[in-house]
Amino acid sequence: MTIDLRSDTVTKPTPAMLEAMFKAEVGDDVSGDDPTVNALEEKATRLFGKEAALFCPSGTMTNQLAIRTHTRPGDDVICDQLSHVYQYEGGGIAVNALASVTLTQGKFGKLTPELVRDSIQPDDVHRPLTRLVCLENTVNKGGGCYYTLPEIRAIREVCDQNGLILHLDGARLFNALVETGETPLEHGQLFDSISICLSKGLGCPVGSLLLGTRDVVKQARRYRKVMGGGWRQAGYLAAAGIYALDHHVDRLKEDHRRAKAIEPMLKALPEVDAIYPIDTNIVIFRLSETVLATDYVQQLAQKGIRCSVFGKHLVRFVTHLDFTDDHLAELQKRLA
Amino acid sequence: MTIDLRSDTVTKPTPAMLEAMFKAEVGDDVSGDDPTVNALEEKATRLFGKEAALFCPSGTMTNQLAIRTHTRPGDDVICDQLSHVYQYEGGGIAVNALASVTLTQGKFGKLTPELVRDSIQPDDVHRPLTRLVCLENTVNKGGGCYYTLPEIRAIREVCDQNGLILHLDGARLFNALVETGETPLEHGQLFDSISICLSKGLGCPVGSLLLGTRDVVKQARRYRKVMGGGWRQAGYLAAAGIYALDHHVDRLKEDHRRAKAIEPMLKALPEVDAIYPIDTNIVIFRLSETVLATDYVQQLAQKGIRCSVFGKHLVRFVTHLDFTDDHLAELQKRLA
Amino acid sequence: MTIDLRSDTVTKPTPAMLEAMFKAEVGDDVSGDDPTVNALEEKATRLFGKEAALFCPSGTMTNQLAIRTHTRPGDDVICDQLSHVYQYEGGGIAVNALASVTLTQGKFGKLTPELVRDSIQPDDVHRPLTRLVCLENTVNKGGGCYYTLPEIRAIREVCDQNGLILHLDGARLFNALVETGETPLEHGQLFDSISICLSKGLGCPVGSLLLGTRDVVKQARRYRKVMGGGWRQAGYLAAAGIYALDHHVDRLKEDHRRAKAIEPMLKALPEVDAIYPIDTNIVIFRLSETVLATDYVQQLAQKGIRCSVFGKHLVRFVTHLDFTDDHLAELQKRLA
Amino acid sequence: MTIDLRSDTVTKPTPAMLEAMFKAEVGDDVSGDDPTVNALEEKATRLFGKEAALFCPSGTMTNQLAIRTHTRPGDDVICDQLSHVYQYEGGGIAVNALASVTLTQGKFGKLTPELVRDSIQPDDVHRPLTRLVCLENTVNKGGGCYYTLPEIRAIREVCDQNGLILHLDGARLFNALVETGETPLEHGQLFDSISICLSKGLGCPVGSLLLGTRDVVKQARRYRKVMGGGWRQAGYLAAAGIYALDHHVDRLKEDHRRAKAIEPMLKALPEVDAIYPIDTNIVIFRLSETVLATDYVQQLAQKGIRCSVFGKHLVRFVTHLDFTDDHLAELQKRLA
Repeated sequence: MTIDLRSDTVTKPTPAMLEAMFKAEVGDDVSGDDPTVNALEEKATRLFGKEAALFCPSGTMTNQLAIRTHTRPGDDVICDQLSHVYQYEGGGIAVNALASVTLTQGKFGKLTPELVRDSIQPDDVHRPLTRLVCLENTVNKGGGCYYTLPEIRAIREVCDQNGLILHLDGARLFNALVETGETPLEHGQLFDSISICLSKGLGCPVGSLLLGTRDVVKQARRYRKVMGGGWRQAGYLAAAGIYALDHHVDRLKEDHRRAKAIEPMLKALPEVDAIYPIDTNIVIFRLSETVLATDYVQQLAQKGIRCSVFGKHLVRFVTHLDFTDDHLAELQKRLA
Repeated sequence: MTIDLRSDTVTKPTPAMLEAMFKAEVGDDVSGDDPTVNALEEKATRLFGKEAALFCPSGTMTNQLAIRTHTRPGDDVICDQLSHVYQYEGGGIAVNALASVTLTQGKFGKLTPELVRDSIQPDDVHRPLTRLVCLENTVNKGGGCYYTLPEIRAIREVCDQNGLILHLDGARLFNALVETGETPLEHGQLFDSISICLSKGLGCPVGSLLLGTRDVVKQARRYRKVMGGGWRQAGYLAAAGIYALDHHVDRLKEDHRRAKAIEPMLKALPEVDAIYPIDTNIVIFRLSETVLATDYVQQLAQKGIRCSVFGKHLVRFVTHLDFTDDHLAELQKRLA
Repeated sequence: MTIDLRSDTVTKPTPAMLEAMFKAEVGDDVSGDDPTVNALEEKATRLFGKEAALFCPSGTMTNQLAIRTHTRPGDDVICDQLSHVYQYEGGGIAVNALASVTLTQGKFGKLTPELVRDSIQPDDVHRPLTRLVCLENTVNKGGGCYYTLPEIRAIREVCDQNGLILHLDGARLFNALVETGETPLEHGQLFDSISICLSKGLGCPVGSLLLGTRDVVKQARRYRKVMGGGWRQAGYLAAAGIYALDHHVDRLKEDHRRAKAIEPMLKALPEVDAIYPIDTNIVIFRLSETVLATDYVQQLAQKGIRCSVFGKHLVRFVTHLDFTDDHLAELQKRLA
Repeated sequence: MTIDLRSDTVTKPTPAMLEAMFKAEVGDDVSGDDPTVNALEEKATRLFGKEAALFCPSGTMTNQLAIRTHTRPGDDVICDQLSHVYQYEGGGIAVNALASVTLTQGKFGKLTPELVRDSIQPDDVHRPLTRLVCLENTVNKGGGCYYTLPEIRAIREVCDQNGLILHLDGARLFNALVETGETPLEHGQLFDSISICLSKGLGCPVGSLLLGTRDVVKQARRYRKVMGGGWRQAGYLAAAGIYALDHHVDRLKEDHRRAKAIEPMLKALPEVDAIYPIDTNIVIFRLSETVLATDYVQQLAQKGIRCSVFGKHLVRFVTHLDFTDDHLAELQKRLA
């Protein structure tokens, strides 16, 4: 029994999801003819109260489509130094959008109205032009912490005052929502565009959604094609997405419960110096100065625990659909 | 009964292909952990005698990955004015590679050694730097005509003499091979990289392969990620690809036979002025001066025949896996 | 005595221009503080009836600034295959604007309303989005032929009907105007932006102007900075520009007279097969099939005549400020 | 009498420099025919012991040419968060090179071997690929502090160990050299490329130089053209550069002496909280929390002292060729 805590991207479809996938009616999505893709896009559109949606092969694609659609070359994007769009998308802000970054150093990667305001560039030809603010909710590298609606509203206000566009990397938004009880509709109102990942906690094999206005999604659909994201009979994957939105949202609470249950196990370990607050399904802990994360992750691998290096002395565990109470009990044994 | 001749991208998996998909073992392909994706990439690598392969969501992605990997901004790409990479990839040569084009006007879209030689830029700062030649085999907009090995060898020679890289857009390469009896291995030797589409004549729902050296594929894998093509449990789609390579190559001959059988039907129509030579599964015909292709395609749609506008007076039919002898007979009735 | 007919870029300032340059009052143009640069920009703004102007180091920069300001990545630019923006700006349409080209094959490089209309892309994700049309007046590679106002108005109309932007590469616009008697003001009305070169026929050492709306020029000023065109005490060069606009426009007629006088000399040469119509200061002639332009240009160089290869069998002469009647007489002797 | 301390870019040529410019022999630099440009490039090449040099309109252009020549899209550049290439070049690293940045937080903007080592990205498709390190010497936003040879050698070593390229933004390198007594030749050995500005402390109206290997400069010359930096008779400006290298290097010490003399004046002001160490010709001081730099700079302007906002509470003075002892005495009066 391998305990795979590397990421919530490692999950495999449940039998029920797989059955939904292979019953799907499909068509050529490049021509807009895949009925299951269309149904998923419409479902998400309604859920978030946006005008349109676009189903894509990855969350990197939906984020990058949003960023390049909202900006033009020479613009500046405000995001936290820990944000996924800056850290884990291959430098895409520069490669795809030819945009620069102004990086905040928020607490656990969270932006605040003040941080945004202080990051706006003066109107000066020496500087890129501030155009876009990107939030991530929950913040992966911040240990899965989340924003509440009032926090987002305050940032939205700064954006409105300064003519800035606001994008949400909502790869794990549903993890936040099951904790706060807030709704997709409430969040949908506050952002110009939202990226939702279906293949993380929601358990789909492949796929993410970009949500926005009709104009933004129309332009994103153009860019999706030129980036090679125009796929054909994608309905098999979209069917998994529909199933996940119907059946896999509420159960995220279990992932969070299990993540919290890991905390005391880590506290007992002498190599662990500190643990980030565990708000959702991500557990980040800091090793003592003398232990390198690369070494430690290898040691755990030898015990059948797979996890990720997240900094020189930082390690990340992520709980997910395929990490059960049995795995949790086994983890305790192996860590001890 | 709709007769859908718009493209060979419209096919849906056969029950046997679907079963293969359903049974696939999967994993996280971004981490290199999907065994079915790995098996497909290895199978293709062996088939073409290349060092490495990369499975991607579309042929546009595999072509664009090749182009941006082989070039740097400010380079020039030689391709025919009819080529897919120039005509149908959203302007990706410029968007993704920041490269210019020198467009040949080959017969039915085919390059020749002379056309390549005459398209090489002088070494001059006013000019982009010629770096890459792209062939398409078969040539979609050329009516599905194909290159033979001696033709390609002669072009390869010009490339070698001038330090140019040679890429093949082999979206429909297998259509060429079943006609000539040449092998993937023979073609694999002549190109620096090859893009193969699985979701056209081969009948897969989604997917293309890029083949090349280890270095080229490594760099392409980087660019795939930043373009959003890093998908997770893609093995369901890869399983279709393996099935198609095993079972759907030889049967392309039937598509060709049916395409040729359409010729006499068209010849009988007064609106049809000329028909391109029908070498594989593509039928392009020219309407008389007074008939617009947009109007004509609408008229056919009303008769339950779907097809594509391919120019002001040009119409394209494509035969494929889901176009049977019954459809052929029905087509004759409806066209008459 | 060398006869330098390579280009009208080779001229050196006259003593009077040089005196104007070194009396110039200067300041830091990046801060908008150079009074002579400001005076030149205002002078040009009034002359063409536009809202704003920007002084730059080259005509390539002014053209490229216009193209990247008017477009966004993934757009398509309609221009003739002979146009300077496509042929001689290092592939800048792709490099700077990430835009594709649709190339017309106009007579002597001139666009017509029909050619523009037929080049507009359908609204389809497979295609780049047509956004901009670029004219060149006079057409360098077309032998210096020019557009008249009615011709431009007809193209403007097609642009208006299709929501397209119209840019003029007016590197040699004044050569056209002295022939037609039309005014900068009349031409200024018909274009969204105009690039004017001061260092060709007008005889300045360095510099070009971009003219357009306040918004276009503001954005172009941003891009000028990031492209490295933000220069400091550029007033010395701007002073030459002011002098040239005051003193060197009318005299372009002399360059044209001398160009026309070259025609009979060429007709007498057995190697010369054909001569393009000579409308302004450019003379392009075609050598017979057996004579390569590279060889012929070397032969002329040995006789002290410098000129340019303009194709496999094409040679170009350009008359200019430093090519006098004495040079013309001497040319006759050496060619004979 | 205005006291202009905004930047050392505001200087105007001395009569002797102007005379040198006026007498310059010129030619078409795009064709490599300007003898004065060639002489300047050769002079700089010898001075720094590099293989080749390129004369350009601005230091932004020379830095950006280096960055885009050394990298390919998707690469990562290590530079300090205070560096000019990140702060003041219009976001050019992203716009021109499609490269990302990893920003260090060095003391007064200086990199160290440790900071460089910790900024190298792991070899992972999620990350851009570390390729280039950029130093700035002196560091403008660091208050004009400088690197010594041993400091640079230690960074060079880390670059060599990790296959990284090292570029110097030497806009004010000569200010460092006159303090340390080190030579251009010693610094030239340690960098793959160097950008030198002639229009800052050296007092030229316009111009910067890029130095590097023949291959780097050849590629940079290509990119210069496509960026619009191919100018024609630039020899007038190059003549100023030659004059400056001959006559204006040693006198930088006077600028430094005057900068240091400003320190006690500032210390006496109640609004001034702290002053950065004054090592060369730049004086940065921090105002107390209640005083905004924008307000304070306006107050000084009313007293006839022009200077720059350098942060919310930061102000910068720069001494230069046109700031004499008379200005210094007058500054004391006006500040008091």
